[in-house]
Amino acid sequence: MNLLIAGISGIMGQKIYKLATEDNYWSKVEGVDEKNPFDTVQEVPSVVIDFSHPTALQGVLKYCVDNKVPLVIGTTGFEAEEQQLIEKASKTIPILQATNMSLGMNIMFSLVEQVASILKDKVDIEVVEAHHNRKKDAPSGSATTIIESIEKGLGETRKHVHGREGQCPREKGEIGVHAIRGGNIVGLHEASFIHDLETIKITHEAYDRSVFAQGALEAAKFLIGKENRIYNMKDVLGLK
Amino acid sequence: MNLLIAGISGIMGQKIYKLATEDNYWSKVEGVDEKNPFDTVQEVPSVVIDFSHPTALQGVLKYCVDNKVPLVIGTTGFEAEEQQLIEKASKTIPILQATNMSLGMNIMFSLVEQVASILKDKVDIEVVEAHHNRKKDAPSGSATTIIESIEKGLGETRKHVHGREGQCPREKGEIGVHAIRGGNIVGLHEASFIHDLETIKITHEAYDRSVFAQGALEAAKFLIGKENRIYNMKDVLGLK
Amino acid sequence: MNLLIAGISGIMGQKIYKLATEDNYWSKVEGVDEKNPFDTVQEVPSVVIDFSHPTALQGVLKYCVDNKVPLVIGTTGFEAEEQQLIEKASKTIPILQATNMSLGMNIMFSLVEQVASILKDKVDIEVVEAHHNRKKDAPSGSATTIIESIEKGLGETRKHVHGREGQCPREKGEIGVHAIRGGNIVGLHEASFIHDLETIKITHEAYDRSVFAQGALEAAKFLIGKENRIYNMKDVLGLK
Amino acid sequence: MNLLIAGISGIMGQKIYKLATEDNYWSKVEGVDEKNPFDTVQEVPSVVIDFSHPTALQGVLKYCVDNKVPLVIGTTGFEAEEQQLIEKASKTIPILQATNMSLGMNIMFSLVEQVASILKDKVDIEVVEAHHNRKKDAPSGSATTIIESIEKGLGETRKHVHGREGQCPREKGEIGVHAIRGGNIVGLHEASFIHDLETIKITHEAYDRSVFAQGALEAAKFLIGKENRIYNMKDVLGLK
Repeated sequence: MNLLIAGISGIMGQKIYKLATEDNYWSKVEGVDEKNPFDTVQEVPSVVIDFSHPTALQGVLKYCVDNKVPLVIGTTGFEAEEQQLIEKASKTIPILQATNMSLGMNIMFSLVEQVASILKDKVDIEVVEAHHNRKKDAPSGSATTIIESIEKGLGETRKHVHGREGQCPREKGEIGVHAIRGGNIVGLHEASFIHDLETIKITHEAYDRSVFAQGALEAAKFLIGKENRIYNMKDVLGLK
Repeated sequence: MNLLIAGISGIMGQKIYKLATEDNYWSKVEGVDEKNPFDTVQEVPSVVIDFSHPTALQGVLKYCVDNKVPLVIGTTGFEAEEQQLIEKASKTIPILQATNMSLGMNIMFSLVEQVASILKDKVDIEVVEAHHNRKKDAPSGSATTIIESIEKGLGETRKHVHGREGQCPREKGEIGVHAIRGGNIVGLHEASFIHDLETIKITHEAYDRSVFAQGALEAAKFLIGKENRIYNMKDVLGLK
Repeated sequence: MNLLIAGISGIMGQKIYKLATEDNYWSKVEGVDEKNPFDTVQEVPSVVIDFSHPTALQGVLKYCVDNKVPLVIGTTGFEAEEQQLIEKASKTIPILQATNMSLGMNIMFSLVEQVASILKDKVDIEVVEAHHNRKKDAPSGSATTIIESIEKGLGETRKHVHGREGQCPREKGEIGVHAIRGGNIVGLHEASFIHDLETIKITHEAYDRSVFAQGALEAAKFLIGKENRIYNMKDVLGLK
Repeated sequence: MNLLIAGISGIMGQKIYKLATEDNYWSKVEGVDEKNPFDTVQEVPSVVIDFSHPTALQGVLKYCVDNKVPLVIGTTGFEAEEQQLIEKASKTIPILQATNMSLGMNIMFSLVEQVASILKDKVDIEVVEAHHNRKKDAPSGSATTIIESIEKGLGETRKHVHGREGQCPREKGEIGVHAIRGGNIVGLHEASFIHDLETIKITHEAYDRSVFAQGALEAAKFLIGKENRIYNMKDVLGLK
């Protein structure tokens, strides 16, 4: 199969390129970026992975639709109108769109939703995440998606409490969120469902940022030959 | 609702009795044992929980079938013929049978099966359990069920390696099993699905042995009013 | 040896009484409280453990000084003047005073101080604690002492950051503090010293609140026969 | 300062070279190996780090003794006679010798020895280590040193039990040892001191194999200007 990476000179583009060239599945791996646009591509690829920038979306969609090539979109930060363009294109080509392409993290999203939907008000729920000391925001995007998955399972949104300090008795139903920052930690996420008699904890640890590149490549393999519509990582994993 | 506990003078019987009398759901809690047999029961209960002994099975089944009372069976160690008696009775009354009634542990059984079925050969699987220093056998019954659940997800049985010592390079597919023993630990179980780039870990910790009694009472509440057949804890939890 | 418990009707008094009566070391265990004052004690004890109330301090000190009995003080919340009375009494009898008598927790205080004094600015330090959902304040008193021990090792106080939310890049030197609340957790404390290449973590988990009673009894055994001065739990443990 | 690396073309030599050239402390970093022997070195270095091979020892010692250069020895596997040569050389130059140069791991060795010496028979001790799935032997060398440190603290050697399977009640005093293998795990070590009422756990996690190179460089900085004798990593860390 031939792979084309849109945004090949970015960090994610480079990681995907490196992993893809080590994998015999791909007989050819090419890329485009600002300096090497789509009209430099000589052979139509089997699938495109896009980790470029929202401003590049129209060009990426036009190329894929014109050439009937499946498209994996890892770029984030689209406006509503851009999102509509993606949905329109999915009538003509299969598109997979995901904000976090780690297989393990997407499994975690599914597991916490299930546990929350079973245990509901029987448990107190607390989420801990840890990242390197250069990360500027908290909690992490993945922790936010974990909490959204939990709330989907619960069937309602909840109050989030960060860290706790002083007099702060736990209110029934609140979700505690804790962001550890230190060293060069790639990414740790823990969701605990705490009952008086037992606790269930789901933990995901990423060892290397190329875990997202790997997921993008799994998504690309999955998407080749699929029907035209929008897919997400749960489809890749066979999760409901 | 009225509850009858078969085997009320045993450890589990006592724990169930204690929890049930603290729960307003149950307006009356009675028990039978060797000294106080079924003919001493004056009012027909809404449901029976049996934590007695395989030798008491026939009496328990007869009472429940004769009085059309749902039956939760927590007793273990039945012979094939006894198991057939249970199945025959389930034509007349709803019966729930489970070897481990902890809600959380049964959730763990389901989660590890799912993760194993998704990640299959992509990961190395290792199971760690910890129990008090008086436990005689290893691994624990729950760890064994976790491994069986994993193998159900994998679609095949695997070689199990315990602890590792000396020259013991990891064979592709083997499952590592490790039994920590110390102090008064009630029960900890961890299943790790280890990939080169990320790890998913499911952890269950029990704080108190009455977690099994609690699960039995949840099962009893679930069983009242159900159709006649055999159920298990996955039915109680709404898991497939 | 004979033990006298001041404040025997309180929660800690009861736990100490229970553990002491199960331990052959103590041939007699008695107690005093508001209803049964010191003049009801018939035989002079080998040691007194005080878990009463600051208002009872003078009576406790008078009894011990008059009878030359070593005194373990677990009561907290003394004013400066009361503390002076304790120090004065320590010229006449050996006194051990501690706010947290768990042996393990006191070991943790020592270990984190050592690690902080060795690694100093090489690491990012984060503290996580977990307690039951009824605890009103955060962080726990033990977590506060852990942080003080770390700062003693560092040789300076630091900024403490609780939980983190929004744009909150980690400032060099800040200590992150995270208070998990849920279920019936007795007490978990973790201090992580996170370097880019490695992490050292010290964890203490309490399984039962009688861990403090046990430490008080160890302290009492230690104190019998010692010279007159004030001791702390580090003396009991043989730590510097 | 000038650094000379003996064995510069090996894995550790390369890692040390990379870290040293990124550190302004070193104004010059050179290396020798089989192809580029000591007589190619033009400027006498401030210190030598040796990660070559036991067969190269005599040449390394001669160069350092002749030029009065401090020597850090990370090479392992010496015979008794070679060890005597090292000790003899330490009369003329300061020598630091260590089998594991990770700062954090050496701190762990000290902490577990202390905890073992305090808690002795009050606790059950269990050691868990985790490494990548290509590691051939178990337990790891570091786990073995952890156990030796614990036994030094206990003042006696103990029976080691690996993993546990079948009927295997815990014997008083045995140390449980568990080797997890999976994925690409760099190195995790946990020592648990388990009491009925509480547990103390010391954990070390390495994120990158260059943690050993970093320790070697710290040792080299420490050794410059020291008196002639043999040192170890505890000296570098200021541990007793």
